[in-house]
Order: sequence, then C-alpha cells, then structure tokens
Amino acid sequence: MSRRRQIYEGKAKILYEGPEPGTIIQYFKDDATAFNAQKKGTINGKGVLNNRISEHIFTRLNHIGVPNHFIRRLNMREQLVRQVEIVPIEVIVRNVAAGTLSKRLGIEEGTPLPRTLIEYCLKDDALGDPLIAEEHIACFGWASQEEMNEIADMAIRVNDFMSGLFSAINIRLIDFKLEFGRIWDGDFSRLILADEISPDGCRLWDMDSNEKLDKDRFRRDLGGEVEAYQEVARRLGLLPEGDENEVLDLEQHRKKRGK
Amino acid sequence: MSRRRQIYEGKAKILYEGPEPGTIIQYFKDDATAFNAQKKGTINGKGVLNNRISEHIFTRLNHIGVPNHFIRRLNMREQLVRQVEIVPIEVIVRNVAAGTLSKRLGIEEGTPLPRTLIEYCLKDDALGDPLIAEEHIACFGWASQEEMNEIADMAIRVNDFMSGLFSAINIRLIDFKLEFGRIWDGDFSRLILADEISPDGCRLWDMDSNEKLDKDRFRRDLGGEVEAYQEVARRLGLLPEGDENEVLDLEQHRKKRGK
Repeated sequence: MSRRRQIYEGKAKILYEGPEPGTIIQYFKDDATAFNAQKKGTINGKGVLNNRISEHIFTRLNHIGVPNHFIRRLNMREQLVRQVEIVPIEVIVRNVAAGTLSKRLGIEEGTPLPRTLIEYCLKDDALGDPLIAEEHIACFGWASQEEMNEIADMAIRVNDFMSGLFSAINIRLIDFKLEFGRIWDGDFSRLILADEISPDGCRLWDMDSNEKLDKDRFRRDLGGEVEAYQEVARRLGLLPEGDENEVLDLEQHRKKRGK
Repeated sequence: MSRRRQIYEGKAKILYEGPEPGTIIQYFKDDATAFNAQKKGTINGKGVLNNRISEHIFTRLNHIGVPNHFIRRLNMREQLVRQVEIVPIEVIVRNVAAGTLSKRLGIEEGTPLPRTLIEYCLKDDALGDPLIAEEHIACFGWASQEEMNEIADMAIRVNDFMSGLFSAINIRLIDFKLEFGRIWDGDFSRLILADEISPDGCRLWDMDSNEKLDKDRFRRDLGGEVEAYQEVARRLGLLPEGDENEVLDLEQHRKKRGK
C-alpha cells in the first residue's frame, strides 16, 4: 500500500485521502470505545467484520435508492467512499426502548415503542454528544429544514429496509445510528448516507433468546464480542458456515503473504 | 380561612380545591428549590411577590388574548385559577444562552441565540425533567400535534409580550418556563396557559448591569434573593417606590390582625 495522507482518526476508523478527488478511504480499526470514550478496548477482527457488514448494507441500500457514500471495498479493512461534508448530527432511530433512552425516560429496556422514534444528538465528543431537538438544529443552523425532512425520510426508509433484512435472519433491530453528509455541486448540495452501518452502531437482539449481537456486549462486559459480530456477519451470508475464525484467519494469511 | 381539601403540594406551591367545581386555589410558598430539589431553601416573602407578579402578567396576557387559568387573586398568597389537566411538558423559551442550555451545548452564558429557541422537558421529578424533542412527545402521546402547534404559537406570543413588558423596565428576558393545561368540554379540550410566571421560572437580567433578578441568585448562592424579586415587582409597578419591606410588612400586619 502506498503512502497516503491521513485526514482524520476517529474512535473506530481512520480516514485517508482517496485516489481521486472527492474520494476517501475508510480504514476500520479493531478499537472499541463506549460511554463517550471513557471505556476503551479492542475487539479482535471487528474492523474486518464491520467493513464487510457495512459494505453489504450500504450496497443493498443503494439498490433500493437510498443514496450513500459507499463506492467499493478495497481490502479486508478498507473501503473507498465519497468525500462528504458531514452533518454534525447523529441520527438515532429507535424501535424498542434501550440504552440512553431507557435511562433518560425511565422506560424498561426491551419495551416496544408506540412508534418509531428518531432522536438527534449533536456530534461533539467534548460535550458527550448531547441530545438535541429539531428546534436546536434550526436555531443554530446545523442543517436546513429541507435537509431535516430528507434525513427523517431516509432514516425511516433505512429503518424499514433494515428491519426486514434483520428479521429475515431472526434478528430484532432495536435501534441504530446514522450519519449523513453533504455533497456539493457548485452552490448546491445534496444529502447522502455516510459513515458505517455495523453492530458498532446498531442494537441487534436475537429474536428467540434476546441475546445481544452488538456493541452492548462490550459496553456491558458481557463477553463474546467477536463471536457476536461474526454471528451477524454469518447470518447475513458474509461468512461461510462453520468456520468461526475464517475472517481473522484470512486476514492473517493475507498479511503473511503480503510481507 | 375555612378548611379545604389539599389536592397537591409542589416545590413552590400548594393547590387546594376551589370554591366551585373546575376551580383551584394556588397557594404560593416561600420555599425555593433548585437542581431538581437537591438544593432547598426559603426566600422570605417570595410567595407573596410571585403571587402578585404572576397575577399581573397573566392578567395582561389575558388582555392580548393568550388564554390562561388565572381568575383572580384572593389574598397575599393565594389566587383562584381554573382547574386544568396539566400537559406533562415544561416549555422553555430561550432568547439568550444560559443555564442548562449553555452547559449542554457549550455556549457561553449571555450569548444571544440566533433565533428564539423553544425546548421541551418531560415534567418528571424522578427523572430530573429530562430534555425531550417533539418526536418523543409524538411517540409517547404526551400531546397531540395540534396541541404542540398551539403550544409553540402561544409560547412565541408570550415571549414577544414579555420581552416588551420587561424591556420597558430595563430588564432583559433571557429565558422562561411555561406550563400548559387542558380544559375539557365533553370530548373536546382546549389548551390554556397554566402554573405561574414569576422570577422563579424566568431569567431576568438588568439591561445595564446584567445583574440577575431571578432564582439564579438562589441557585448560585449570589445572595439578595428577596431584594431581586422585590426589584422586579417594583419595576412592574406592583410595589410603591422606596419601601423595601412593604409586602412583608403588609403580610405580617394582616396576620396579626387576622388572629
């Protein structure tokens, strides 16, 4: 791999300048953080799995006409994406009460919500990504009203699609986080889905056992993080049946060969 | 005063059954609380002043056609109001960053907001009145969409009126809290403004000195709480000039006489 300029290092990904203008390379790390990075750790092989899972979901979303930044996967840990101006808002779509919502509003985890709830948080690590309302977004101009309408529409479409996708493999989609970005063409911009969709930013519960197949295993010290991420990838048809360590084996094999 | 049934005791007020069905007596206490009642104290004469200030503002709001629960003041600490089904939402109208908004979003206190911001909090002491968005209100059915539109419209009208009222007496209206209630007529309900409007739930800064003339004096241990509330009442023309202790003297006089 040739030398290239690092643009940004986040908690779970590194962004490099892409080969052509307007492109970015997303590198998926194994680093895991929780509670606004107060808890840090590593989930072995997470980056490889998330790269693959996110590729799969973004490709499928593209098929149903939800525009997103994904161009193609480059290798085990990297994918080429379109460069966007990120909207500084985390969009959280919730079908079932869990996590901060349960804590904040005193609703028992696992309670189905009366209707799908979209929450917005300001992307600001120093402030702990505080909950905001559309009123704050309008007041401070973080997105326009048209953009907010588009975001809500896309979020609902992604939720419908992913609810179907996961229900087919016996997984309940509890909630998930989306990020959006602007692509500029002269004075005009349009919004596309950006970042990643993976068990890092989704709550995924096995439909029969309610077993958590997502980052809550790490957040709550439940163990079996790698196995959970692998299980999601396997059910999505991204790993051959029966070989638990295939992804990591593949990566190690590739590394040895590459040397 | 005859014996009557207490309906509810809150942090700053007691509600009694009113003389006719559909009425309530609001009794204003001197008790002050802050930070979700973690801090408790007394501001001598506060109840008397808030009763008078709230009467004044609600009466004036009635004149401009903002419907509210106020019927008439009964005595120094009590007013007769209409019984409502309270909407479990605190409506916070902000013109200038202060308090929790400054802390949550990292905006320096005193920064004028790009536009008036309406925030909603769930009225739930046990949860610390958490911030919610219109999405939460719709999801859990705490108010209908029509009610939310009416609330926002009324909140803006109250803000415009109060901004004018206070600017005339050299006070900057930083932010304030409103509560709304439903009045039922058969299957139909309409919304009216309820609770109180007083320095307990408003931030009021002197325009020249930025001196705080509100409950922040208590919250932040600045001292001079009584004097600040009296100053607001005096500027509103509710106290004769020059007699600092008039209200309290009056009350004590009345108590002695009543015995």
